[in-house]
Parts: sequence; structure tokens; C-alpha cells
Amino acid sequence: MRKVLVIGSGKSTSYLLKYLLDKSSEEQLFITVGDLHIENAKKLIGNHDNAKAIKLDVFDETSRTHAVKEADIVVSMLPARFHIEVAKDCIIYKKHMVTASYVSKEMQALDDDAKANNLVLMNEIGVDPGIDHMSAMQVLDNIRDKGGKIILFESFTGGLVAPENDDNLWNYKFTWNPRNVVTAGQGGAAKFLQEGTYKYIPYNRLFRRTEFLEIDNFGRFEVYANRDSLKYQNVYGLSNIKTLYRGTMRRVGFSRAWNIFVMLGMTDDSYTIDDSENMSYRDFTNSFLPYSPTDSVELKLRHELKIDQDDVVWDKLVEIDIFNPNKPVELKKATPAQILQKILMDSWTLSKNDKDMIVMYHKFGYELHGKKHQIDANMVVLGEDQTYTAMAKTVGLPVAIATLAILNGKITTPGVQIPITKEVYQPILKELEAFGIKFQEKEVPYLGYNPLNN
Amino acid sequence: MRKVLVIGSGKSTSYLLKYLLDKSSEEQLFITVGDLHIENAKKLIGNHDNAKAIKLDVFDETSRTHAVKEADIVVSMLPARFHIEVAKDCIIYKKHMVTASYVSKEMQALDDDAKANNLVLMNEIGVDPGIDHMSAMQVLDNIRDKGGKIILFESFTGGLVAPENDDNLWNYKFTWNPRNVVTAGQGGAAKFLQEGTYKYIPYNRLFRRTEFLEIDNFGRFEVYANRDSLKYQNVYGLSNIKTLYRGTMRRVGFSRAWNIFVMLGMTDDSYTIDDSENMSYRDFTNSFLPYSPTDSVELKLRHELKIDQDDVVWDKLVEIDIFNPNKPVELKKATPAQILQKILMDSWTLSKNDKDMIVMYHKFGYELHGKKHQIDANMVVLGEDQTYTAMAKTVGLPVAIATLAILNGKITTPGVQIPITKEVYQPILKELEAFGIKFQEKEVPYLGYNPLNN
Repeated sequence: MRKVLVIGSGKSTSYLLKYLLDKSSEEQLFITVGDLHIENAKKLIGNHDNAKAIKLDVFDETSRTHAVKEADIVVSMLPARFHIEVAKDCIIYKKHMVTASYVSKEMQALDDDAKANNLVLMNEIGVDPGIDHMSAMQVLDNIRDKGGKIILFESFTGGLVAPENDDNLWNYKFTWNPRNVVTAGQGGAAKFLQEGTYKYIPYNRLFRRTEFLEIDNFGRFEVYANRDSLKYQNVYGLSNIKTLYRGTMRRVGFSRAWNIFVMLGMTDDSYTIDDSENMSYRDFTNSFLPYSPTDSVELKLRHELKIDQDDVVWDKLVEIDIFNPNKPVELKKATPAQILQKILMDSWTLSKNDKDMIVMYHKFGYELHGKKHQIDANMVVLGEDQTYTAMAKTVGLPVAIATLAILNGKITTPGVQIPITKEVYQPILKELEAFGIKFQEKEVPYLGYNPLNN
Repeated sequence: MRKVLVIGSGKSTSYLLKYLLDKSSEEQLFITVGDLHIENAKKLIGNHDNAKAIKLDVFDETSRTHAVKEADIVVSMLPARFHIEVAKDCIIYKKHMVTASYVSKEMQALDDDAKANNLVLMNEIGVDPGIDHMSAMQVLDNIRDKGGKIILFESFTGGLVAPENDDNLWNYKFTWNPRNVVTAGQGGAAKFLQEGTYKYIPYNRLFRRTEFLEIDNFGRFEVYANRDSLKYQNVYGLSNIKTLYRGTMRRVGFSRAWNIFVMLGMTDDSYTIDDSENMSYRDFTNSFLPYSPTDSVELKLRHELKIDQDDVVWDKLVEIDIFNPNKPVELKKATPAQILQKILMDSWTLSKNDKDMIVMYHKFGYELHGKKHQIDANMVVLGEDQTYTAMAKTVGLPVAIATLAILNGKITTPGVQIPITKEVYQPILKELEAFGIKFQEKEVPYLGYNPLNN
């Protein structure tokens, strides 16, 4: 039996473990799931013969190194900051490793050691990052193989609630880390390329500079810019590209309403409110508005942000109950962002029967034989339930497939890798199709940003 | 002769040196002005018998300690970060010291040593901080002396252009460090107290939450909140106050127009623009707006920020020439804030004959014998010319008067001080009146923030 060590058994591991267990007899795999708390691991592996759950504290060197030593390949599904000690052990004990996280500086520093030991340290092989890399590179390589010159690349991903459970005014529920949603876009201007010009959007305008996208059968979405649109420009081989834009997808209207939180200052995570534990939701809202002995919090907010009484954003604010004088914040010395997160979790937490949805949309513009072309490609994945979510599926399956492919010597290029080479993306994208993770591609007229071409 | 060492001979030293020179015979003073560049010092002291200029590099320990050792008292008019080495020398060689700068942590750490050596290290004795402390504490102490309980304190200062030279649409010119004007308000939400409630204003709303003030014969001003309204709450003895608000004064309309820069992202000082040196002013403006092959930068900006074609803020933008395609930015890898500063300096630099103006406004609300009262106090100081500016007068004269008072044993309390005690503010405020630096006080009905009382 080949031994796979999976460290971490959180939300994103359900499909990963299911895939490995389903293949375990045929592929002669034994899966060990290590976690600080093994209840979820036990639930996920049931009484499968080819798996066990062990208690593993990643900060306990003895048990960690023992577990790594025993394995043939290591998958780390821990939060990104915990990978590095595992990765160092993998170098020492000569094990391949797979993660779905961004390559950290510390991880990148292991590249030479990994190469010297002929080890694959595969990262960014979840959904975003992961499926976005693979699906984009496949189309980009195809275009380049037939002699095309890429002039535009845009890429958008969103974690949303499935249409059948999309039952609030924001068309949004938390399907992943709520904190990242609340603080999204902070820390500096978004930078991107449009028709050869660098463009900058400050945080206070980020949620007002959205664009629309259509997906057949799923309707219209909007996108706001990521901070790091240029991050993969060189990795993807796009140094001379005219338009390069990456963003986050939401249902139309989310961003305009979210911008109210930004304008009020409710997403600020840089200071704490002294008396937050004694505040109501209404007090919290009022703390961002001028004092008045007579005017209501509602009218002050409407006036401050010029919200008409028949504007739907108003109903969105009312829906999340920010004017409620009876709901206590309870959090001690909390930042505005922490308080807002709590308020939103009251309304936006997935119910037991809610399903999630992952959407991805790429646009590829290119020139071939003197003519401009555009390919749009999109993917929609729906969750099955609260365990087998679309997020778990799109994060876990690529990780699982890559793990087996490395074990089977189908992915061999050593070093700290991300899935941008044919060797990696071709077999993985092909196998993902069998699980319904598939892009719809279509040729569309090239527009760029020129409405005159319309 | 008593020897006064003045380190630094920049913009704010003209009145300081004039005061000391005018008193030098009567008070037996000899003034040594030390600076890295002594041209300005030489110009300011002329051929006065009781003064000399010496080349002094504050980082050159030998010459610095020599100069300090020779002196009876040391005045440091250097930028705040350069005071500390001088202050340490003053402790070693047992000299009093005076600065107009905020007390740094390093300076505060010398408090015990200063007390042990019976030395006065007087700081924050310019205009803001300085005259604001003294004038506020005088009224606050008066109110408390007659048994009043302070319930409201608001304090505002502005450095502006004198009315006779107030000839641009912004009613503003740079009278002090332009960089501080461009980045004002950044780094966190403004926090203050209104009628017992903490209020927070994020940067993106700071310039839209202004209030108006009137000064007889000078008309209307507006104020926006400082970040640190609560900074002196305990120092001023205002721990139970209901309303505590400090801010910056501008002419009405400045802030609403300035907010356009904030919204566009032009005041951001946290990243650099790669190709800034090849940009025109128009390119710079365009980099914050969506790409369009057809629409003008002007219309994109109007649309983005919903500026009506007959709104005066538009004329303000045109006046500073941000749409000019022929003016080059020239700065290499500059931040948006640095580029904006350059653009504004084209329009807002004082001309040779322009005079500046310092305005200050305090509101004091208090309860006495069960009734609420309010005193408003304001000060306006006009500059004489580009050397003898209102800024130099209001910064330099309190420093000079304090220096002589310490030399003459009239200010004696040792330690790291700021001018909040009667010993300090009474004689200094009295003497400032002779120079036209005088507050107009009037009793007004107490309103607080209750328009019903109107």
C-alpha cells in the first residue's frame, strides 16, 4: 500500500478524502488523516478499511516528523501559515507534498532543496488559486500554440450561494472565511491593466467600479477588482498584454450595497472600539454617524450617504438588522470589521440545507492572422450539501487528483510548483470533467473596452 | 551676557530671532544660531552685535555638544525627529531647552533626568501645538475656578492665506509643509466625543463631515476632524466631558472639493506609480478612471463622482490643471500623493507678496449653578510678508517668550513640559497680546449638538 498523509480535516477535505478512499483499493492507497481534533476526520472516513484518523499537532515536532516519515506523500490542508514546518520535514524525509495554498516566501525558499531531492512540492492546486491557473493556462497555451498573440486576459471567481437557496436581498451567504469577505480589498489600491494603461482603484471606489458578466442559465453577475491583477502576469507569460484584470464575482447589486459599509467605516480592522461589548447593533451603526438628539439613526444614515427612500440598498441594510437596538454586539474591544462580521453572520450563515456555488469566468482576447478574437470560458459548480460543498469539491478534487498523479509518476517535475504546465493541468482538468467541473467555452466578438466595436 | 543657542534657522525662526535680538541689549542676551546652511541665519540676524551664525550639523557630536556646552539655554527649531540628541546633550550639560514640537516618546523618557537636574524641557510651545494649549487652558481654568463644570470643548486651527491674497477658487495656499496637507487625515478613522458618544469618521468621509464656524470680520470657515481629538482629554483634565472635538479649519468648500482627490485615490502615499515620470497631469488623473477609447477624462471623472456640470468643484479641478496633457509629472516612481503635491504646488505656492493667516477657534461649554453656558474664543493672525509670516509669528514668539522667561527664572517647574500651567500660559499669553496675538472671547447660548435649543 502507498501511504498518503493528509494533515487537516476541515471544511475543504470532504471530496479530497472521498476521492482517495474511492480509489484506495484499485490504487493500493492507505490514507492517514492527521488533525488536532479527529472527530470530523472520523466522520469523513467512516469505517473504511484503507484509512485511519490520528491526532496530530503540527507544532509537536515528534509526532509530526513521525507521521511525515511514515508517509509516501503528504497533503497539507491546514491554513497556509502552518504548511512550512511540514514542508521542511518533507525535504528532510524526501516526501512529495501537495497544498492548495499560495506559495509563501518560505515555501519558495525550499525550491532548490526540493529540486536537489527530486521532490514535487505542488501548491496553489485548489480552486482559486488552482482551477483558475489550470483552466486559464490551457486556453492560453492553445491560443499560443496556433500562433495567436494574447492581448487580453480577465479572470474572475466567486464563492456564492446556490440559486435554489439564494433567498436574501444581498444574494450572498458566507461559503468560506467570513473575515476575508469583510476585509476584502483593503490594504492598498487595486492595480490592473486596461488597453495598455495602468489603472488604480482606491478602496473607497472598489465596490463602485464593477463590471457585469453573464453566464448561460445562471444570469448576471458583477465583479470587483482584486488588488493583485498583475501577480501572475509573468508566470502566465503575458508580459506584453494590453488588458489584465482579475476580480471577485458577486450577484449584481452586492457591491453597491457593500460600499455603504466601506463608506461608513464599518469594515475598518485597524482600531478597536472601547465600549463595543455594551453596544447594540444600532449603537454600532450610530457611532459612524453625527450626533443628533432628535434625528433617527435611519435618517442620519440615509442623509449621510444620500440613499433615496425607494432604493433597494436600504432594504438590504434593514434586512441585516443594523438598526436593531436590542441585539447586543457582545464582542469585547472589537474592531468595526469584527462587529460587522458578527452582524452579517446572523444573516449570511449557510443553513443546514443550503448549497453553495462556485463560479469562474475567464476572458481571453488574442490576435491571429491580423484579426482580433475573444474566447469566454466559464464554470459553475454547485454544492451537494453542507459537507460536500462546491468549495470542498473544487478545492479538494484537484488536490486529490494531483496527489495520486504524483504518486503514480505522472507529475514528476521537481521543485516548488504551481499547476501551470501541460504535464499538470491536462490530466487534472480532464479528470475533473468526470466530476462535473468543466468549463463552457465560446467564441465571442472581441470588444476589449471599445464600445464603438459594439 | 546670557547665551541662547538657537538650532535651525528655517521658516519659523524669523520672529523668534527678531524678539530675542530686540531684547538682547536690555536682557543681556547673546544669540548663536546654528544650522547646516547659515545663509538664512545670516540674513535674519543681519549685522546685529549680539548674535552670530555658526555652521552646525546636529549629527556631528563634537560640534553639537560644543555648542550646547557654551549655551545657557537651547532652542531647537529643527524638525521634531532631530530634537532628541540635542535634548540628551542638554541633560548632560545641564541646560534648559525649548521646542515647538510634540513631545515624542524619547523626549518624554527624559522627564526624570530633567527633574533630577532641575531643568525645564519645554515643548509644544508654538501655535498648534502651543497657543491652542495655552489659550484653551486659560479659559478652562477660569471656568473651573468659578465652579463651572466643563461639558464641551472644541478646538480648531487653520493655516490659510490672508484675505487680501485669497485669490484662487479653493481659498487656500500652502503656508506650511504641503506634504502634511496632502496626506492629512490618513492612517485611521478620526475618533471624537459628541454628547457622550464616541464617533468615528473613516478617511473617505472625513472631508464630508465638516462643520461651519463664523469669525467676525473674517466670515465663515469649515472644519474637518483631526484623528486625535481625545489626545489631550486627560492632560486638560476633561475626563468626564461630553463633547470633545478637535479639527482643522479651511475656507468653506475646500473639503468638499478635496474629497474628490480622496475618492479618486490621488492622496494615496502607500504605493508608487511605475511610469510616473512619463505621465502628464492628465495621464495621472486618467489612471484613476476607467479606460475608454472615446470618452474624455473630464466626462469620466464627472460621471464617476457624479459632478454636475454647474458644480463649482468642477471649476476648482480645472483651476489646478489636472486635465492638462502637456504638463509632465516628471517625478520618478512617485506615489499618487507626491504627484498631487507637485500639481498643487504649481497653483498653491505663496507668491512673493502673498501673506498668510493663522486662525484658531475654541468652544467651551460648561454648567454653572445648574445652567449651561458657552464661550467661543477665536484668534486671527495675519502675516506681514513671506519672511515675517503669521505662521512664523505664532510659532516663534511663544518659543522666544518662553525662552527668556526660563532664563529669567519666571518659568521654573522642571521636567518635560507642555504649556498648560498658569505659571507658563499667563505671562506668555499676556505678552503675546502686545504682538497682536489675542483671542476674542464671547458668551454665546449653549447649543451643544441640539438643534431644538436653537
